[in-house]
Amino acid sequence: MVSPILRGGDVSADSEGVRLTDEQRLDWLRLIRSDNVGPRTFRALIGHCGSAGAAIATLPDLARRGGASRPVRVCSRADAERELEATRSLGVRFVASCEPDYPHRLRMIDDAPPLLAVRGNSSALALPMVAIVGARNASAAGIRFAERMARDLGLAGLVIVSGLARGIDAAAHRASLASGTVAVLAGGHDHIYPRDHIDLAKAIVPQGALVSEMPLGWEPRAQDFPRRNRLISGLAAGVVVIEAAKRSGSLITVRFALEQGREVFAVPGSPLDPRAEGTNDLLKQGATLATEAADVITVLRPILGQPIELEAEEPDAPFTPEAEPGGDERSRITQLLGPTPVSIDDLVRLSGSSPAVVRTVLLELELAGRLERHGGTLVSLV
Amino acid sequence: MVSPILRGGDVSADSEGVRLTDEQRLDWLRLIRSDNVGPRTFRALIGHCGSAGAAIATLPDLARRGGASRPVRVCSRADAERELEATRSLGVRFVASCEPDYPHRLRMIDDAPPLLAVRGNSSALALPMVAIVGARNASAAGIRFAERMARDLGLAGLVIVSGLARGIDAAAHRASLASGTVAVLAGGHDHIYPRDHIDLAKAIVPQGALVSEMPLGWEPRAQDFPRRNRLISGLAAGVVVIEAAKRSGSLITVRFALEQGREVFAVPGSPLDPRAEGTNDLLKQGATLATEAADVITVLRPILGQPIELEAEEPDAPFTPEAEPGGDERSRITQLLGPTPVSIDDLVRLSGSSPAVVRTVLLELELAGRLERHGGTLVSLV
Repeated sequence: MVSPILRGGDVSADSEGVRLTDEQRLDWLRLIRSDNVGPRTFRALIGHCGSAGAAIATLPDLARRGGASRPVRVCSRADAERELEATRSLGVRFVASCEPDYPHRLRMIDDAPPLLAVRGNSSALALPMVAIVGARNASAAGIRFAERMARDLGLAGLVIVSGLARGIDAAAHRASLASGTVAVLAGGHDHIYPRDHIDLAKAIVPQGALVSEMPLGWEPRAQDFPRRNRLISGLAAGVVVIEAAKRSGSLITVRFALEQGREVFAVPGSPLDPRAEGTNDLLKQGATLATEAADVITVLRPILGQPIELEAEEPDAPFTPEAEPGGDERSRITQLLGPTPVSIDDLVRLSGSSPAVVRTVLLELELAGRLERHGGTLVSLV
Repeated sequence: MVSPILRGGDVSADSEGVRLTDEQRLDWLRLIRSDNVGPRTFRALIGHCGSAGAAIATLPDLARRGGASRPVRVCSRADAERELEATRSLGVRFVASCEPDYPHRLRMIDDAPPLLAVRGNSSALALPMVAIVGARNASAAGIRFAERMARDLGLAGLVIVSGLARGIDAAAHRASLASGTVAVLAGGHDHIYPRDHIDLAKAIVPQGALVSEMPLGWEPRAQDFPRRNRLISGLAAGVVVIEAAKRSGSLITVRFALEQGREVFAVPGSPLDPRAEGTNDLLKQGATLATEAADVITVLRPILGQPIELEAEEPDAPFTPEAEPGGDERSRITQLLGPTPVSIDDLVRLSGSSPAVVRTVLLELELAGRLERHGGTLVSLV
């Protein structure tokens, strides 16, 4: 039993950020729903053009200059309005990454979704969170342990984040319905997966929330689950792994957690249990051993006590357009690129162009579907 | 599967030490079987008197000067001869701590038995050893894991040390009968405990050994088991703990192991399994997590590769007697002592006497049954 010392320990989510106008929100939705625009490109475009509205206007031209083989599709105003309307009718609303009610830890990851579709009690998203993840084919003991861990962390004031999957995920959500739990969906809000967890999803809404970065109507594909896992770790201050085999989805979440600087906890198990191979390996690699909620809280308490630094994103700030590359510069920079990832710093150094010009050329290539961004600041041609 | 890289990696046990004459061995046995003489007092007496024979002659006088309330019993020559004879007829022989075939790691602990009664293949005692200990009421999985660990460590050339108890101990011995295993007894060689393991003990003898510091005829009492555990860790380069509850005997072995500078390994288990509480706690405290033999070998290989420094004990070396305390010095030093342990360094400083004089007074008190030695160099009055 853990005292609720953590409630209120997380700070500043309510005190920062700018609220979008309806028109701006529509522009943000159009921009993120346009071809070749992911979260990182979205940020780069806002940086380059000053606002989502300006970015939408400039996008086709940038893509053409980047060498797009055919015109890039920009999400139409009508399509965005339809999605906004349908979303609203499901009781879901969009929260932008610059707004005060956007989960502030998630805002810090470099591929935070510009718009998060949220259904439920958004105050849960302002509390400190911890993720509990693990095997779908969990053992009875694993399920029981996940329930105990989720309940005790909930009593301590932490909101439990997970992926609504069978096994450990569902057990963690169920045991924290009353204290607050957040499920991150891999598809749209109208495509809960697995289908038998629709009732669980409904039960989460009163105290907690369902969140998704995917459009309505999006049926989750295999590759959407790992992508979704970065949001599970991104929302949380730490990730607790309960029963995970080698090469399991939970370990993908751990990889994201480490990239994002989140704490990783693993629950030990018998060496003869294949469902403990992943967690025991994590322990060998330095994860914190957790057999009870107190083990998690001891590590997270000092982290949650510290104010989080917000990376401000201000769409209404005065804007100076970035330098436009000359034709020579564009081809010189493009020639420096290949299938092997190189750092943007190296591109600046080798091209002799200004960082602003290099950023613009990369943005053009990205919008043309010719550039891939990797972790850190590495880029390569597709 | 681990390659037998360790065989031969442990060094120098055969190249050092002096062999006792029959007469000296008899003196050693008489001295260690005398009242108030434990392994530490034995060493102190040899240091003070120069040889076991001289110590036997001086012992009653030292005890009287220490304030013994009644004459201290010295083991008679006849009794010692009887024990030697009975021991021999059981196929057991005494190895002295100064002799080349004494297990060289055990020789380094500060309360190493001066004489170890050995039955079996003494070459096993010259190989590098690792201890496997754990719960008597082990689970089927724990037993299976102990077998696998013992077999794989055995294949790697390590001799398995344990305590012949039910559960994990017996499993570890059984799985390493062919490669070599050592059981440390808490009683005399004619009092194997538990009785149902007499056959197991017999099976150990061809490739391995049974060892004891206790006299023939000694039936093990409760307090003899913890005392025995220091020899299990003392023989080994590391201790692997498999399934241990909180406050279990295995954790006593771990405490000795840490005092002796041995490596400690713990096997993880489910937080819901009470038999894993002790091992999971050890992991939280920094023990090395072991799920397979390779985890143990990785840590021990560099340790076993290093030559062991031998603390020479040479009963035949030229001897200068230690300073005799005056009556004043004796009472001043005794007055500085009380039931609270103090360090010998402090006694020297506070008494103003020489270290040699302080040592002599402490020896007298010890032989009088009035002094207790604690870990380090702490002493107190009984």
